[in-house]
This record gives sequence, C-alpha cells and structure tokens, in this order.
Amino acid sequence: MAAQTTLHLPYDRYFDPDPAQKRIALELYERVAGLPLICPHGHVDPRLFADPDYDFGTPADLLIIPDHYVFRMLYSQGIGLEQLGLPARDGAPVEQDHRKIWQTFADHYYLFRGTPTGMWLTHELADVFEVQEKLTSASAQRIYDQVAAKLATPEFRPRALYARFNIEVLCTTDAATSTLAYHQAIRDSGWGGRILPTFRPDALVNVDAPGWQQELDRLSEVSGIEAGDYRSYIQALEQRRAFFKQMGAAAADHGVASPYTQELTDAEAEAIFARARRGAASADDARRFVGHMLMEMARMSVEDGLVMQVHPGSFRNHNPALFARFGSDMGADIPTATEYTRNLHPLLAKYGNAAGFRLILFTLDETTFSRELAPLAGHYPAVKLGPPWWFFDSWNGMTRFRETVSETAGLYNTVGFNDDTRAYPSIPARHDLARRVDANWLASLVVRSVVDLEGAHEMAHAAAYALAKQAYRLG
Amino acid sequence: MAAQTTLHLPYDRYFDPDPAQKRIALELYERVAGLPLICPHGHVDPRLFADPDYDFGTPADLLIIPDHYVFRMLYSQGIGLEQLGLPARDGAPVEQDHRKIWQTFADHYYLFRGTPTGMWLTHELADVFEVQEKLTSASAQRIYDQVAAKLATPEFRPRALYARFNIEVLCTTDAATSTLAYHQAIRDSGWGGRILPTFRPDALVNVDAPGWQQELDRLSEVSGIEAGDYRSYIQALEQRRAFFKQMGAAAADHGVASPYTQELTDAEAEAIFARARRGAASADDARRFVGHMLMEMARMSVEDGLVMQVHPGSFRNHNPALFARFGSDMGADIPTATEYTRNLHPLLAKYGNAAGFRLILFTLDETTFSRELAPLAGHYPAVKLGPPWWFFDSWNGMTRFRETVSETAGLYNTVGFNDDTRAYPSIPARHDLARRVDANWLASLVVRSVVDLEGAHEMAHAAAYALAKQAYRLG
Amino acid sequence: MAAQTTLHLPYDRYFDPDPAQKRIALELYERVAGLPLICPHGHVDPRLFADPDYDFGTPADLLIIPDHYVFRMLYSQGIGLEQLGLPARDGAPVEQDHRKIWQTFADHYYLFRGTPTGMWLTHELADVFEVQEKLTSASAQRIYDQVAAKLATPEFRPRALYARFNIEVLCTTDAATSTLAYHQAIRDSGWGGRILPTFRPDALVNVDAPGWQQELDRLSEVSGIEAGDYRSYIQALEQRRAFFKQMGAAAADHGVASPYTQELTDAEAEAIFARARRGAASADDARRFVGHMLMEMARMSVEDGLVMQVHPGSFRNHNPALFARFGSDMGADIPTATEYTRNLHPLLAKYGNAAGFRLILFTLDETTFSRELAPLAGHYPAVKLGPPWWFFDSWNGMTRFRETVSETAGLYNTVGFNDDTRAYPSIPARHDLARRVDANWLASLVVRSVVDLEGAHEMAHAAAYALAKQAYRLG
Repeated sequence: MAAQTTLHLPYDRYFDPDPAQKRIALELYERVAGLPLICPHGHVDPRLFADPDYDFGTPADLLIIPDHYVFRMLYSQGIGLEQLGLPARDGAPVEQDHRKIWQTFADHYYLFRGTPTGMWLTHELADVFEVQEKLTSASAQRIYDQVAAKLATPEFRPRALYARFNIEVLCTTDAATSTLAYHQAIRDSGWGGRILPTFRPDALVNVDAPGWQQELDRLSEVSGIEAGDYRSYIQALEQRRAFFKQMGAAAADHGVASPYTQELTDAEAEAIFARARRGAASADDARRFVGHMLMEMARMSVEDGLVMQVHPGSFRNHNPALFARFGSDMGADIPTATEYTRNLHPLLAKYGNAAGFRLILFTLDETTFSRELAPLAGHYPAVKLGPPWWFFDSWNGMTRFRETVSETAGLYNTVGFNDDTRAYPSIPARHDLARRVDANWLASLVVRSVVDLEGAHEMAHAAAYALAKQAYRLG
Repeated sequence: MAAQTTLHLPYDRYFDPDPAQKRIALELYERVAGLPLICPHGHVDPRLFADPDYDFGTPADLLIIPDHYVFRMLYSQGIGLEQLGLPARDGAPVEQDHRKIWQTFADHYYLFRGTPTGMWLTHELADVFEVQEKLTSASAQRIYDQVAAKLATPEFRPRALYARFNIEVLCTTDAATSTLAYHQAIRDSGWGGRILPTFRPDALVNVDAPGWQQELDRLSEVSGIEAGDYRSYIQALEQRRAFFKQMGAAAADHGVASPYTQELTDAEAEAIFARARRGAASADDARRFVGHMLMEMARMSVEDGLVMQVHPGSFRNHNPALFARFGSDMGADIPTATEYTRNLHPLLAKYGNAAGFRLILFTLDETTFSRELAPLAGHYPAVKLGPPWWFFDSWNGMTRFRETVSETAGLYNTVGFNDDTRAYPSIPARHDLARRVDANWLASLVVRSVVDLEGAHEMAHAAAYALAKQAYRLG
Repeated sequence: MAAQTTLHLPYDRYFDPDPAQKRIALELYERVAGLPLICPHGHVDPRLFADPDYDFGTPADLLIIPDHYVFRMLYSQGIGLEQLGLPARDGAPVEQDHRKIWQTFADHYYLFRGTPTGMWLTHELADVFEVQEKLTSASAQRIYDQVAAKLATPEFRPRALYARFNIEVLCTTDAATSTLAYHQAIRDSGWGGRILPTFRPDALVNVDAPGWQQELDRLSEVSGIEAGDYRSYIQALEQRRAFFKQMGAAAADHGVASPYTQELTDAEAEAIFARARRGAASADDARRFVGHMLMEMARMSVEDGLVMQVHPGSFRNHNPALFARFGSDMGADIPTATEYTRNLHPLLAKYGNAAGFRLILFTLDETTFSRELAPLAGHYPAVKLGPPWWFFDSWNGMTRFRETVSETAGLYNTVGFNDDTRAYPSIPARHDLARRVDANWLASLVVRSVVDLEGAHEMAHAAAYALAKQAYRLG
C-alpha cells in the first residue's frame, strides 16, 4: 500500500456512517458551525491579549512545550521531558533545538491516533496553519517551516486570531490574589475583544498546601485587609470577589480533591485557620476547612451572583519524582472516584433552591454522569452540569455524556461547551469537535424519531451557543 | 423552517437506522408488540380498580400533579411546585387553575426532548388520547380540552383501560400494615382483572425512621399480635406475609439505603429492637437491624415462596426544604454508589443456593451491571436481575443494561420488564418502549450473526412476556 | 417458522452492519486473521505439551467439566454441578455418563445466546471440530459422536493443535513453588513449541490463607533456602524468580484482592511474617503484607526484568457451600469495585519511572478504564494496560475497553490480547474474536475519518500481534 501523505480533514468527518443519520447530522452541524465561540471556562493566559504584538515563539513553543496533553503521551512511551524542551528545576540540560523537539514529536505522532489530541492537532495544522500533508518523520521539517512562517505573520498575533476564530467572549482563570493587571491592560488598550477573569481561590483555601502562608500574605496585600484571622480572611475574599466582578468576572471556580461540604461554626473555622497560620493544620483540618469554604463560596455566589463552578476529583502531581524535577501540570494528574450525592448534601440543602444561585458541576468520574449528576441537575434549580472535562473532552467522552445524562437531566440542565484549554490555537478545533458530537447525537435522535428536526435544530443551537451564554450570564 | 405541528409517532420509531438491522428489529417487534402486559412491580393505586367509576380528574390531575418524573424537570428549571398545583404542607397558596398548570407544562414541554418522560407522554397523548398535534404553547388548551373530553367518557375508567391496555396481571406495592381493603373490594366486585398486592415492610424495618413506632402499633393492630418485642415482631411480620400471600401476593419488596446484610443473634436483634422502642436506636443500630432484617426476609421468602425484590441505593428526600413543604416523592431522591458483592455475601452464603428462593436485584448504580450484578446472577441460582430501574428505565438505560449484563448473565437470568409506575395510563407506553429496546438489541445481534433469527424470536418473547411471568411465578 | 438447524458461522460475523464500515472492517481483519497467536497469559496446563500423546478424554471432559464459564451459567439456572460431572469433595455421587452430561448441556445451550462463551463454543464446534449443525437437544448425541471421533485422532493431540492453531508462544501460569517439571519435560522432548512458565507467588504472599504454612515449607524445599524469616523468604522468592527466568519465564503475575501498595520497614515486614508463622496474622496484617509484597515484587521486576502483571479485584469463592463441596474456580468468583489511583501511588512513586520496568494492569471493574487506568497508562512509562479480563473478554467488553481507554492512553499503551484461558481448544476462537473487535473498532474510526486506512492497518497489526510480543518481550 502506498503511504498516504495528504492531510485528510473531510467536511463530514466524525459523523456516524449511516447515510440517513449523517445527512441529518450535516444539516444540523451546518447551521451551527459558524456561530461565534463562547469560551466561559479555560486557561488561556490573558497576557496574550494585553500585548498586541504577542509572539508565540517557535512551533514547539506553541504546540508541544506548554501542552501536557501532548507531552504526557510521549512521556508514557519513554520520551523524557528534557528531550521535549521542558525546563527542569534541577537545571539538568534540556533540548534547546526546537527543530529536534519537533522531529521527536513527528516521529511519534502515530501515538495520537484515535485521541482527541490527535484530532485537535490535525484540525489545527490543517485549518489554522493550512498544512496540507500528514505530519510524519519525513514531512516534519517542512511542516515546521510552514508553521514557523505563519507564526511570523501579523495574522498570527492572538488578537488577530481572536477575530479569525470568531470568539465572542473568553474567560480566563485567575488566582484570587491576582491584580488582574493584564485584564486591566486589555481594557485600557481599547481593543474590542471580550476577555473576562474568573475567580479561583484554591491556593487560599487549601490550608495545608506548602505555599498557603505566602498566598495569605498576598491576599492581605492585594485586598488591603489584613487577613490575620478567619473573619478578616473571609472579608478579604469578599473584597477580591467584588474586585473580580467589577473587572467583568462572571464566575468563580473551585478545584477540590473531593466535593465534600460541611458547614463549620465560626469558632471551628477560626480554630482551624489559627492552626493553619501556625503551620499546624492536620489533613483532616484541611479537608474540613475546604468543605466549609465551599459552603462559604456558595453563600458568596448567592449574594454576588458569580456562577460557582466545581472541578473535583483530580489527584494532582501523582508522580513525585516528576513533580520534583518539573513542577505541576506535567500530565501526572490522575482522576479518582468522586462522590457527589452525600458530599454536596449540606451545600444543596442550604443553597440548592436559592434564587439566582448557579452551581456548575464537573467530573473526572464518568460513572457519576447517570448515577448522581444527572439526577441532581434534573432536580435542583441551582445545579447545572458542565461539559465533559479533561479526559472526557473527546468524541466518545462527549457522546457518552449526552447518552447518559440527557435522559434524566435533559439538554437544558447542561451548560454547553467549555474548551478549558491553555492551547489558544486549539480553541476552534475543540468547539468544532463538540458541535459535531452534538450534531451527530441529535441526528441519532432525529433518525430514530425521538425528537423532530425542528427540535433538534433548537437543541443544536442551544448546545453550541445559547446554553453557555445563559449559564454564565454572558448575554 | 415552518414549525412542525403534527404529533409524530412513526411505527418504526426508536430503532437504529441501519436498514438491515431495522428490518429485523421490526420483524422481532411485530411478533411481541401485541402480547399481554405482565406488570409484576409498580405503584398504581389499587383504589383505581376498587371503584368501577373511578374518575382521574383533570388532565393536570392525571398527568402532572402526581408524576414526579414530570414536575422534577420543571422544578429543575425554576418552576415552583406551587405553580404546578402540588399541595404544600404549610398551606401556601397553590395554583388551582388546572388549565394554567397545563399551559405551564406545555410552555416547557421542550425540556423533555430526548427523555423517556417525553417519549412516554408523546405515546400516551397520541395513542391513549388520540391527540394529533404537538404539545406546544399554542396547542396547549386545545389538547387540554381533548384529553379532558376523553377522561369524561366511560372508556377512560381504569377497568376499561385495563382491558384496552391488554394487561394480564398488575401487582401493586402495599405497606406491610395494609389491610388490603381495596384488593378485597376488587375481589368482592367480581371484576375479572388480576390486581395483586406486594408486601413492602420498609416502614416497619427502618427502626430509626420518625414514624416507626406508629407503624409498629399498626402492625400489632392489623396482625392481632402484640409486637412488643423482637420475637413477636417477627411473628407479626410472618402473619402479614401469610395474609398477603392469601390475598394473592407473589412478591415482597425491600427499599433499602444499601444492600448490606449481616445476621444478628436473637439477643442482638432483641436489644436493638428494645432500644428502638425507647427511641434510642443509633444510626448504626438501624443499619445493622435493616441488614439483619434482609436476612430474615430472605429466610421467610425461602419458607413462604414470596419472591424477594431489593431496590437499594436511593438517598431519599435529598432536598430538606422541599421535603418540609411538600413531603416525599417530590423528585428529590438521588442515587448513591451501591455495593452488592460484599454486602450481599452473608445473605447469599446462607440462602443463595436454597431451592425455590428467588432474589431479584435492582440498582440505581449502573456501574454494578457488569461488575457485580451480572456475575452474581450468572452464578447463584437464587439471583435474578430486575430490569433497569427509575432513571435507567429509558432507551439508553435499557440498552446499556442489555449490553453490559447479557454477556455474563445471559438473557435468562433477567426477569423481563417492570413498569414500576404510579402513572397508570403510561403503562402501555413503557412496555412498548421496553419491547422496542429489546427488539432493537436482538436485531443488532442477529444482523451481526451473534444469534440466529429463530433464537432472537424466542428471546424477544421471553423478554416481553415469559420471563416476567416465570420470575414472579404469575403463571 | 421452520427451526434453523445449520450451524451458522459466516465469515463477516460480528461486524457492525453499516456496509461502508463493514467493508473496511473486513479489509482490516483479513490482513491480521492469519497472524500467529501470541499467548502471553493463560492457564493451559503444561502437562498437555509434556506428553506427546496427551488425550483430552470425552467431549464433556474437554468442554464442560473443566470450564467454569460453562458450568456457572448452567448452575445459575438450577443445574447441580453433580449433574455436570464435577467431582464433589464430600464423595456425593456425580453423573458418570458423559453422554448424559452432554445432553444436559445441549438442552440448555440456549442459555449461552449472546454470551462470549456461546460465541467461542460455536466457533470451536464449527471450526475446530467441523460440526455443521446447531447444538440442540435433538443433535446432541450426533455432535457428541463427531467430537469424540475427532478427539480420538492424532490431529487432536495438543502438540498437533499447537501447530494447527498457529501458536507462536504460549505462557502458562505456575505456582512460585512449582518445579516446572512439565516445562522441563517439554524442553527435554525436543519438540519445537514455545511454552513458557509465568511466576505466580500468590499462595506465598497471602499470609492469612489456610495453606500458607505448607506453601512456605514447599518454598524452602524447592529453593533450598530455609524461609524461616522474612529476609530468607525474600531470598527464596528471588531464587525462584531466577529459576523461572532461566526456564524462559517472561513475566510474573499477581492476583490480589486490591491493588493496595504500601512499603513496610524490614522490621514491620519481619514482625508480620513472624506472626503469620505462628498462625497469628490478622486480616490487617495480611492486607499490609500483600501491599508490601507488591512493592517488593515491583523491585524484583525492576531488577530481573520479569514483566509484572496485576490482576486485582476478585472476591474469590463467594459461595461458601459450593466451595466446601467443590473447591475453587467453580464460577463463584465475583468482582468488586477496585481503586488504582491511590492504591498504586506508593508503587508508582517509587518505580513508575524506572527504566525497563513494566507493570501491566488488569481489572474486573470497567469504571476504572477511563477514570484511572487510561490516565495512569497515558502518563507513567512503566504502566501498560492488559486486555479486558474475564467477564470483559467479550465483544462488548473489548469494544467498551477500546472506546473508553484509547482516547486517553492511545492504542500503544495497551498490550494486545491475552486469551487467559485453561480451555486450550478455545484459543483460536478467542483470538479471532479479539481481532474482529479491533477490526470493527478501527473501521469505525476509518469510516469517520478519525484515522486513515494506512494507520488503521498498522494499529490492527499491533493489536493482533506486535503489542503482545513487545509488551512481554517475547521477540
């Protein structure tokens, strides 16, 4: 067989092959493919938009070195992170030749067959960089040249891509102690893009984490409230939320090991806080404090209207040797089984019916889709379900989400798509994949007469655009 | 696009679109579509059949106010239960205008797109009430009129529908302390329908539940045995089972938080019972007592032949504010992860091989389908698997059940379909959906040459009719 | 309908019906269907190959009496194991007439509809024994005759079948205390088949199991090292591993209740060992010791290069009455929920990045496919995923494995197929089924333009042959 060398990205890709279903899927997809992108949750650095001349660097700087989806797969096959140019804390030599890094990537590109990372990268290369040949060992350097040439042009500045990608709004994720200087710079620049911050207080809430004291100092500094006790700590957090809101934030986000919630008395909270200040908080103290702070954050969301997002269940930095050498976000975060029904009971008992409160739940444990999340969202007015997160942000993951959640929660208790990415140029590929998943899923309902075509068009529009905008109140 | 206004319920609905598979599915379905309905587990009120002139009331009385599948979805989108006519315990004003309730329902009918509730309601409106237009805001009042007109006719008395629905037998669910007066009245009336009680002792077994003492008093009263200690309590329960059996009961049913089983000594059981009588039973007492009583109920089933059903894993009344205002069964029961292998070990070690003992297991945790339930049913002669329950009584839920259970347990260790409903006129829709699921699943096996067509016809008949009859000994 | 009597095993069986996908599936399958079989993990008795004239006995001896997949299903439907010829420990009379056993089996063959056991048996009868009619009550004795006649021929000696089955290598599973006498006899015979032992030390590691002391004595005897304390016990185990390796072993295998790992100090390990020697080890001692020994076995694998396999999560001998009468492996092993992320953390923290270390993980809990196993394998260089095990060694089980694992771990962090069987003549059927699953899965990717055809051919070859050979270093 002659090797296939052309990059193949057909217009009807990913849809199920049945001709009747595919025809409907294409019809549904075509109507939403060009809608603006709503990006209510992600990790793009606001710096990209603060500087109108921001330069992405080399193709490796853009597509490999910062993307843990990419280098985790290579690492799993025995390729050291040093070979991929990742800076080691111990000062060990790392590959400096970005063409060599790119070649290693291309030599192993077959590893991404059938993965969403492969699907996004192929889309990006073909659509964003107009590459027309498959990425292989042989074509690697040619494609490097082509991508590098594109990156050198003004069309590849982040603001230009914002327009080209047809982004309507993009929310970043920001430490609660951030001054939001880049967001201020974006505002001050007069540029028309809509980049909004999101309030993420994890580092201030995890009282047994190593950097907590410094974060607390920083909180006092930026809030102007000396957060020396629990009471003033809460006030300082409220001050930060007000500041974020004033800077346009729509939401807060909470990454927790577990969605455990339990309200402490003020005295208990104060006591744990005091122990933490002395560096004497136990693991159980920390667990209870985090559970209590989720309650407090819910209270604040009820009061200030910031949408509350919870992303639980990741065992962060599971590989200590890698963490010691390279730090966090090295592809070594591993999911754990996650319980919502009992853990969220205190929070939902108190706030689940509160007018205007919105709690968006995410999971890394897909067994909870049908067992806990859909039943919760199908009952509590406050609860909505975030899109399939991280390892489930994939063709099969999103399809299983629709198939396991929708019968109990319906479509309208979900919140559309989040790209959740720091890989800015992958955003169109991710939204396109999600829109194709939903078109395909809806077509499977239409072809089986579960919904009619008119209804399916409305659902496709909601899934691609309207639900995200409504859920995060970005209208 | 012109709005679609015709109610669309095509004969080949729901089947997978592949033409070869669909042709086989239709052939399989046609052979079982008209079989009588076996309804071995459900919650229809026997009062419907005791009174030959029973009147369902308005369309809202029939289809909205009593159906937590319906109002939970509306509630999740911020529609108060008062707006839907549900009586509040606190005497708050509730909507009295049933046309207005119906309008609210119709205005939000799009929420049910892709849900089994939507599929059942559409079937019911089209097939039972002969409605020919889609339920929308515009058509709401016309459809209300049409349904109300039907409900006023003699053809819409429950007994007439029993014949029209082609029901062969229908089991209700009855408190162990029930006098079965309605069942007696049905018998006395000479009507030919077969309505059987089911023994449900939960309220007598949950020793820490608020109403337990009153239930116990009622047990003493109806059994004529003063259930003042554990020993007489057991005797009184045995008396009730004997009475239910004499009244035609085929089965007992046990709703438990967990399928934990553990035999206590008589002294331990007696001690917990005594503490409970003093209102001093701890949560652990209650858990152990329930686990022990499952063992006792298994023993009684071995002795009296009542089929034992276990429905575990629901966190009942998860929303305390709603519970306080509206009571139980308000759509706020949320599933929890459920363990069977270890929990049922004591019970199965003692009774799993007992001749004639039949234990039908249900779940709200579909992860147990392949991991625990199918292996248990594929080994123990006593164990059979109930159909997908509650949130899994749906196209995808039933399909996943077949696909995850059958390879290990086969079809013949499952017990056919249960409609498990209190919504009487939805019964044909539910059975029809289940029969379509099985026809579609079997067609997928035939078209792939896993089973031959002859075998598939036998399996379809078993799934639609014979297995339920055999499993519950309703022959 | 006339009964279908011809055994139907079409060439395009099992593939999805869509014509475009099926055409691709067939093309992919055809290229790998004839590849040699790599059998890196299984339970075939090496005795079969030590004796060139080994006789399988009757059809019942071959296909029913030793196969717990077969008799568990019959037992679940109330057929006593005595009726199937299984020897009872209590000396109760068991059926001696193998024709009668066969008839019982045939009478109930419909129970296996849609099960992998049914698919394997049908393949075996049709392909290995050239039976051309369906197994039914009517055809049972004719088929018995035909199978018996085949078994009497020299073509049905195990060595002849090894060649006919096109096996390239077959690994057995052997107690760590085995002298590997049959393996030695195979070597000495000069026969060209490649039969390799696998080191399985479970009976030596489970310090609270009844037979542990005898196993320990046997360890001292065969190793020549008096394993009287923990230190010498470790030395004796190392000696056995060296012996197995010298006899060709590629791997070790560990069946554990849970993949819990935790390193003990030497003093702690020594203390538990000493308690166990006195018969005084507690359940917690045993759990901690097993967790520690997994760490030790990983250390040894790092040192000696034996691939480490872990098969956790089976509750063995769940049915005590059956165990008392018939012993182990009676179809009464029931899976339990299994946790990997936290349990394996100590082991992976220490050895997960070790050069050359290979840890192959299996599961009976498919919820871990996407949640824990794929993320672990998609990160740690040491971790690879074993194929779907036991109840998941089935069309749907393998398909779900590919669909839930591949997006995160890719294909190349999995290790191809294991037949894992003691039913020697079922080996071709099992591999053929796996190759069909993968061809069908890959065709679903090709037809949707997720991978191109060239890539799919490479993936099919890897899945069918190369990955197993590489993973177990059988090159």
